[in-house]
Amino acid sequence: MSETMFPPPPASHRGPVDHAVRDEIIKAAGDHFRHYGYAKTTVSDLAKAIGFSKAYIYKFFPSKQAIGEAIGAGCATTILEAARAEVDRTSTATGKLRILFKTLTVKCLELLFEDKKLYDVVSCAILERWGVDVIYTEGLTALLRQVILEGRESGEFERKTPLDETCRAIMSAMSPFTHPVMLEMNLENLQETSAELISLVLRSLAP
Amino acid sequence: MSETMFPPPPASHRGPVDHAVRDEIIKAAGDHFRHYGYAKTTVSDLAKAIGFSKAYIYKFFPSKQAIGEAIGAGCATTILEAARAEVDRTSTATGKLRILFKTLTVKCLELLFEDKKLYDVVSCAILERWGVDVIYTEGLTALLRQVILEGRESGEFERKTPLDETCRAIMSAMSPFTHPVMLEMNLENLQETSAELISLVLRSLAP
Repeated sequence: MSETMFPPPPASHRGPVDHAVRDEIIKAAGDHFRHYGYAKTTVSDLAKAIGFSKAYIYKFFPSKQAIGEAIGAGCATTILEAARAEVDRTSTATGKLRILFKTLTVKCLELLFEDKKLYDVVSCAILERWGVDVIYTEGLTALLRQVILEGRESGEFERKTPLDETCRAIMSAMSPFTHPVMLEMNLENLQETSAELISLVLRSLAP
Repeated sequence: MSETMFPPPPASHRGPVDHAVRDEIIKAAGDHFRHYGYAKTTVSDLAKAIGFSKAYIYKFFPSKQAIGEAIGAGCATTILEAARAEVDRTSTATGKLRILFKTLTVKCLELLFEDKKLYDVVSCAILERWGVDVIYTEGLTALLRQVILEGRESGEFERKTPLDETCRAIMSAMSPFTHPVMLEMNLENLQETSAELISLVLRSLAP
């Protein structure tokens, strides 16, 4: 599709068509990164592969990093949605906490082993402190906070420690299994070690 | 010093002189890595800098990695000894646990900020799963185990969870601040986050 065929409206008037084009670029870029890797791909390569002009792509994304970030944000959202669905279908706060971290680890592993090239884009995004990190961390903290609050209300969890401190400390304790980059360093005895760590967190939450 | 001046005895008969030469190579290599980085240095560069022949160095170390490993092992030992000294001079198990992890973090940070090039050698050693990782992890686990046992005996810590599980889970929980590579990713609000994490671990140990 050429630039003249599909001129973008000004940024302030972006509508559904723009979103469709944006999604098309993200999808095509994702496929391209999967085959050729993130580091080796330039915006020119992407433009050629998608059939858009480079200038046209730049109207939607200021840089390759911005495209990578949009892909990473998509992955983060998928992982968090899967975790939220599991949390919602579990009854006790204790069960929710276990399933939350188990699902995150499983989903990160799927990305790591089934889609290594895409995983590298996400790792890059996190190591370079892109917005993906913020989306993932904030989304996960919100989910965790909700579970802790439920456990405090039901009497399953202690209420002395300030809620924010509890959330921060658990995020930190669980990071070897929820942070994609650290997860890659902790693959040995992963299931057992991760389950034992969740048990430690649950003991720390005992009223 | 040339090879002919200082012929090494067979490996089975290595004595104090051999150890002195080994230490000399480790020290010189450490200085060299500090200036030129680990990746860019070859065994030939080291040999030239120290004034030994390459063949002579190979009689003591089979590879550059082996030299890097010996340097990393030295750093690990220094960090663990500092932690042990602090643990020994603290009275309660709760205090010991706090000071153990605080000292490890401080010492790893010193290495990171005051000796970045050497830190890179250690990071390399850990990421590539050299023996350094084993020395550090085993030394730290032994120290932690001793503190937990003391706390269980004094009644400060719970005794229901199997001791090995408690140690593994704490090692895992604290890894964002004790593992040099992960530490580098957790520098933001380091002191506060690390203290909160230790408090979480202590809550998990409550009888």
